[in-house]
Amino acid sequence: SRSLRLAVIPGDGIGQEVVAEGLKVLAAALPADVKLETTEYDLGARRYHATGETLPDAVLEELKGQDAILLGAIGDPSVPSGVLERGLLLKLRFAFDHHINLRPGKLFPGVASPLAGQPAIDFVVVREGTEGPYVGNGGSLRTGTEHEVATEVSLNTAFGIERVVRDAYRRAAARPRKKLTLVHKNNVLVHAGHLWTRIFQQVGQEFPEVATDYLHVDAATIFFVTQPERFDVIVTDNLFGDILTDLAAAVTGGIGLAASGNINPSGAFPSMFEPVHGSAPDIAGQGKADPTATVLSVAMLLDHLGHTAEAAKVEAAVAADLAERAGTRTTTEVGDALAARVSG
Amino acid sequence: SRSLRLAVIPGDGIGQEVVAEGLKVLAAALPADVKLETTEYDLGARRYHATGETLPDAVLEELKGQDAILLGAIGDPSVPSGVLERGLLLKLRFAFDHHINLRPGKLFPGVASPLAGQPAIDFVVVREGTEGPYVGNGGSLRTGTEHEVATEVSLNTAFGIERVVRDAYRRAAARPRKKLTLVHKNNVLVHAGHLWTRIFQQVGQEFPEVATDYLHVDAATIFFVTQPERFDVIVTDNLFGDILTDLAAAVTGGIGLAASGNINPSGAFPSMFEPVHGSAPDIAGQGKADPTATVLSVAMLLDHLGHTAEAAKVEAAVAADLAERAGTRTTTEVGDALAARVSG
Ligand SMILES: CC(C)[C@H](C(=O)O)[C@@H](O)C(=O)O
Ligand SMILES: CC(C)[C@H](C(=O)O)[C@@H](O)C(=O)O
Repeated sequence: SRSLRLAVIPGDGIGQEVVAEGLKVLAAALPADVKLETTEYDLGARRYHATGETLPDAVLEELKGQDAILLGAIGDPSVPSGVLERGLLLKLRFAFDHHINLRPGKLFPGVASPLAGQPAIDFVVVREGTEGPYVGNGGSLRTGTEHEVATEVSLNTAFGIERVVRDAYRRAAARPRKKLTLVHKNNVLVHAGHLWTRIFQQVGQEFPEVATDYLHVDAATIFFVTQPERFDVIVTDNLFGDILTDLAAAVTGGIGLAASGNINPSGAFPSMFEPVHGSAPDIAGQGKADPTATVLSVAMLLDHLGHTAEAAKVEAAVAADLAERAGTRTTTEVGDALAARVSG
Repeated sequence: SRSLRLAVIPGDGIGQEVVAEGLKVLAAALPADVKLETTEYDLGARRYHATGETLPDAVLEELKGQDAILLGAIGDPSVPSGVLERGLLLKLRFAFDHHINLRPGKLFPGVASPLAGQPAIDFVVVREGTEGPYVGNGGSLRTGTEHEVATEVSLNTAFGIERVVRDAYRRAAARPRKKLTLVHKNNVLVHAGHLWTRIFQQVGQEFPEVATDYLHVDAATIFFVTQPERFDVIVTDNLFGDILTDLAAAVTGGIGLAASGNINPSGAFPSMFEPVHGSAPDIAGQGKADPTATVLSVAMLLDHLGHTAEAAKVEAAVAADLAERAGTRTTTEVGDALAARVSG
């Protein structure tokens, strides 16, 4: 019998609640001969306040032995901005070389978009996850004074861009519309932008069947609200991807439904799956959070581990549930309903 | 009698067409005793191809003697990306220290927003214009090879942030709702982000009447489409401002209506007014471009020069025109209609 060693990091706020439902659906979806072995890791604001730790080396070591990570949400207003983000969430993404940050933007039938006309939206953003302005290369001089100067350096490598661009082409080639859009700002950030553009064109020669397009990030935000149906696969840098995927979540019905995978395709380190939303401390502990984004992240996890049919089943369960939604349900009720659909 | 020395840079594509209408309305709006002296500067793709020049020093010197600049649009696919942007448009913004890049986001009655429910949108983005990732501080190593590394450095100074933040507080204090939102990404770009946040809080002490708020840029994009009515004044960095103001244009009816002012409040150098849209080469020369964004930029120009009543008159003309729009009109027809309303 096979096993799936899953690290579970519920994290802060609603993270706890949504992860519980995600695990419920995962258990229901996994093939019978796969033994699920979960290890829960207490990381986030609570641990930080108790011990000052964000991600101890020993935990990082242990995580390396896992097949995958399911993460709820990280962050609390009681912790200074950046401490948990840089010290835990981004540390995991960088330590495990999660260079493919995969974020689908899909408007499910029955879900209301804030966009008039309810356009047909079905794209996926391939966000670079280990470079760009996220590298943590910055500093400040004369800190705290009226003469302070602060820098942030965006680092971009041909190696790092090529692997994410090739991944995006592969995904585009495997989809019916076979269209890939590069989003950057190569008319202002000329060095990084020209590198992205050069590699995008170069790798494109391996994929003559994929139609390509380039948009500046500002123009892309316009099309996200005026013509989102034009997008199929989008590849972009870490920061632009962060911005565009929240916008994508907004136009497809909200961050309650937006899933993501931080993927290391080599398998050298575990990939990590998490809803795009944050810890939402204002509604934490009230059973109000929608676990759907976590459940869709579980579908991505299943797909990543090769359980393609099971992944499709989970996504179909979500689609069916969304199509029939009526009234308000608790976090657990939504999780139960999805698990029942998957088992049924 | 007074005079207004105006530099006119029509630029590329539809720039020519929309600027002609902007000037028509400006002439109609100016007080009778103000003599308009325009000087047209041939800058943009045509000149670049003819002479290789983007912004010759002699032209820059001449522009310094003008009271203001009206710019149409810069850019053409025949020119490599970045050449005209960095060598002309951004060069003007930086040389003339246009640190207040002012961009209203207003949904006029009668204009269709792509957002369902047609929310009441009336905010203004105060985008920093002379710092951040736009400084042009980047480079590349092993350029053109598989080992290329490219950097982009965001430079942020207490001095530069304080002046734009104070300007934004002043604008917020002068508006009925008195609300100011800082947008940044201080949980990831911690050095620049913490500097922005510190100064935002510090300057806020001078404006106890202004309610403040902070949003990460990704969250801000969500609210732009789900709750745009929550915003009053927004202050943000150069790149985030670029992205957010195109999104703002999209939700308020499109870039055909979005105006902007690149302002140097000290008056040491001329301020520059331009529509947010680009040169749109695909529709250039066909009389199809909507000159409204340019006309609204002219209103901002009038306001900047102290012609407050005339600015209000131009904005009222646009509002009236938009409320009654029906059928398709040419660029000239729209300009004529607006000029007639302003004169009438
Ligand atoms: C919490 C933050 C560090 C993170 C990011 O910026 O990547 C989040 O916004 C996301 O998109 O996963
Ligand atoms: C053309 C480009 C350099 C410019 C910018 O990025 O500022 C434009 O997008 C704008 O918003 O005025």
